[in-house]
Amino acid sequence: MSEQKLPSRAEDFAEWYNAIVLRADMADYGPARGTMIVKPYGWALWENIQAALDKRFKATGHVNAGFPMFIPMHFLEKEKRHVEGFSPELAVVTIGGGEQLEEPLVVRPTSETIIGNAYAKWIKSYRDLPVLINLWNSVVRWELRTKLFLRTAEFWWQEGHTAHATAEEAEAETQRMLNVYADFAENEAAVPVYRGRKSESEKFAGADASYSIEAMMGDGKALQSGTSHYFGQNFAKAFDIRYLDKNNQQQHCWTTSWGLSTRFVGAIIMVHGDDKGLIMPPRLAPHQVVIVPIYKNEAERTSVMEAVARIQAELIEADIRVKVDDRDETPGFKFNDWEMRGVPLRIEIGPKDVANSSVALARRDKPGKEGKSFAPQAGLAATMIEMLKTIQQSLFDRALAFRNANTSDPKNYDEFKAAIEKGFALSYWCGERECEAKVKEETKATTRCIPFDQPSEPGVCIHCGKPAKGKAIFGRAY
Amino acid sequence: MSEQKLPSRAEDFAEWYNAIVLRADMADYGPARGTMIVKPYGWALWENIQAALDKRFKATGHVNAGFPMFIPMHFLEKEKRHVEGFSPELAVVTIGGGEQLEEPLVVRPTSETIIGNAYAKWIKSYRDLPVLINLWNSVVRWELRTKLFLRTAEFWWQEGHTAHATAEEAEAETQRMLNVYADFAENEAAVPVYRGRKSESEKFAGADASYSIEAMMGDGKALQSGTSHYFGQNFAKAFDIRYLDKNNQQQHCWTTSWGLSTRFVGAIIMVHGDDKGLIMPPRLAPHQVVIVPIYKNEAERTSVMEAVARIQAELIEADIRVKVDDRDETPGFKFNDWEMRGVPLRIEIGPKDVANSSVALARRDKPGKEGKSFAPQAGLAATMIEMLKTIQQSLFDRALAFRNANTSDPKNYDEFKAAIEKGFALSYWCGERECEAKVKEETKATTRCIPFDQPSEPGVCIHCGKPAKGKAIFGRAY
Repeated sequence: MSEQKLPSRAEDFAEWYNAIVLRADMADYGPARGTMIVKPYGWALWENIQAALDKRFKATGHVNAGFPMFIPMHFLEKEKRHVEGFSPELAVVTIGGGEQLEEPLVVRPTSETIIGNAYAKWIKSYRDLPVLINLWNSVVRWELRTKLFLRTAEFWWQEGHTAHATAEEAEAETQRMLNVYADFAENEAAVPVYRGRKSESEKFAGADASYSIEAMMGDGKALQSGTSHYFGQNFAKAFDIRYLDKNNQQQHCWTTSWGLSTRFVGAIIMVHGDDKGLIMPPRLAPHQVVIVPIYKNEAERTSVMEAVARIQAELIEADIRVKVDDRDETPGFKFNDWEMRGVPLRIEIGPKDVANSSVALARRDKPGKEGKSFAPQAGLAATMIEMLKTIQQSLFDRALAFRNANTSDPKNYDEFKAAIEKGFALSYWCGERECEAKVKEETKATTRCIPFDQPSEPGVCIHCGKPAKGKAIFGRAY
Repeated sequence: MSEQKLPSRAEDFAEWYNAIVLRADMADYGPARGTMIVKPYGWALWENIQAALDKRFKATGHVNAGFPMFIPMHFLEKEKRHVEGFSPELAVVTIGGGEQLEEPLVVRPTSETIIGNAYAKWIKSYRDLPVLINLWNSVVRWELRTKLFLRTAEFWWQEGHTAHATAEEAEAETQRMLNVYADFAENEAAVPVYRGRKSESEKFAGADASYSIEAMMGDGKALQSGTSHYFGQNFAKAFDIRYLDKNNQQQHCWTTSWGLSTRFVGAIIMVHGDDKGLIMPPRLAPHQVVIVPIYKNEAERTSVMEAVARIQAELIEADIRVKVDDRDETPGFKFNDWEMRGVPLRIEIGPKDVANSSVALARRDKPGKEGKSFAPQAGLAATMIEMLKTIQQSLFDRALAFRNANTSDPKNYDEFKAAIEKGFALSYWCGERECEAKVKEETKATTRCIPFDQPSEPGVCIHCGKPAKGKAIFGRAY
């Protein structure tokens, strides 16, 4: 509940984040170290994220499936870089049905290997291609420093796994899904993102190329918010995924994978939230509108609740996700509670509003007088739909302005270090792993991605001064 | 693919079932023993089952959440009968992040214990009750004799977990959810079910009472298709789930759980399928209608495909799930393939149909001439909606007639044994565990449930002749 004041976002961003997650009933700590329980309010947001993504996946020709969580240990060893990358993070089942297993089973950290094994069996001919499958599940990567939604031993996500007849098709798929993520982030979550390629040291274990969308959180730090990987023929060769082409020749497939996880819930909290709590982007909000009835006695209650029920029915009819708060609590308590939980729009209805056939409105994104207004009850659903659109746009604009104000193009390494304290630096970089490692050591900033949009003029590396391969976004990351 | 003939359903039901599951691309074996891959076509059916149930859960006030898959071993030991029931089936993680764990983690076989631990923490007052949470996830029960969908080491399901202030409320919830399952089974899946209480020896480990819906498969055997459990205060006491009542007294809660799993996919296959393959109930079918274009040359193709595209658009507009099969295969091949996959309605469009502004129709549930007809293209969507309703009803009626014809009321134990060979026996039973065990030993039949509808006359046990407590449904079960 919201009786206690939240920690200040400006003063202690990490504490503010933890307090919101717990007090808004988004999530809780699981009993096994590193694990998370996503509570109903947090899960409702995740379900809306799932629906928005799933619609886009199906519109681009993908289908869902269910794969086992257990992967025989030797599968992981088939792709050398993959096993190196994931070995330190594995949870391993060694006992089943009371007996020691002959071969231990890994709880999937990601499913490329078990998918590779199945695709090798299923794909025979070019007629079977492309295979475009997505999985909604949870995966386990051993992790003891829990940060709810951002870093947990088990997290929920989707993982797309596709196989293609040509490199070009697989490359196009990788880009297509990165664009799906960017479209989702910007148009559903109101979270502006940079799209680009990961550096060699930041890419996925086993990928030829990894791409990501990167968002700036309210403290200027980066959150990798979705990734898309091009595997070339690495997994196809490791698992022998082959097809007979039109000329009757055996060919290895070209594969990709792409994922977005419950981390994104963290992004929504950290991009939009303020000192009063969460601010949910209307398109994903579990409740888009909350109605708080206000009355002092039974006679008032009756007339107010009659209006509330009528308005609720009208909003439901218009497909607005509306919540009526009829708890036995004061209006003030309810206002604070729903502000903390980030409901985009509040409707207050008291006896005066009933008499005037109007309602009082409060926008969550504009606390104080600026966000307050009155509206006639007639046509309220249409008014709500317009206001929700306005709030959605306003959240995006604010996040974009913040990100742009905190993304700079420093002239030298001293300016670069100052820029990193505030946000992102978009800087020329030599492309060398050693140089990247030194920057990280000195500033805690990593290359987030190498944006697709590159300047036409050449430049020199912000750190070492050697000729640059282009510009990269540097930032401290979650 | 469907080139090969399926095994005969009458001659070898088990082989017929396995062949359908594999050839219709419903599922495949996973690499770890006992595990299953649900392929996209099977998953699409599961998604429709999920949607139909989820809508009902939400309409009855439930919300979804996400709980961790890992449960500390000592949690299971808190409820004595629970750990006894599940111990032999556990998969245990003993290594995490490369190190031996101090306490092993169980991969959830069901979540009562981890839910109990969370509810104890979350519930403080009567104002917090009831808690009505559902989880969509997968669980693991060690199992080496794989039968796809029916018996696998990992399966997908939903598990509802509720906590209440009184025994009456918890009992009512248990019944409510059993009724939700029965409504779903009969009205969405066209699978008639018996509702009743499980015997003491068949009930859930840790429950005071278990209830189930029981369906008859095409071979006369029973499939427990959904269960609902009343725990009294067992888990509340084991996990100390307490609330402060209105009189400021600490009280233990009363809890329930209820689940329905991917086993239900097996029920749909075994209740409706025939020698040509699957028959999907229209309300859950991934594709409700398939359109097969028929043409001999490019000119015919152009005019046929124009009509196909127009009709497809009209059906989509009417929310019919329609698939156009434009593969480079013969119409005959396509007919067999979609019959095997059980699409309820087929539309054929050839040059003559284009000329006549009509289409040829074929009902999957009535193979041969009886299911064939023609319909005008005008108003086709409305025609389809009506025919899909007819097919849905016809599948239910057929399954009900079959079940009733194979459920008998034997006069003596010899007749009982004969009845069990065919299907269910609805027989007086003394209620004793020993008697039930002997019947099982002698006939392989178990008590499926004790139906709520009971005769008013007393009777004697079909096996031992002692006074009966009422009638039970006996049957051999999957």
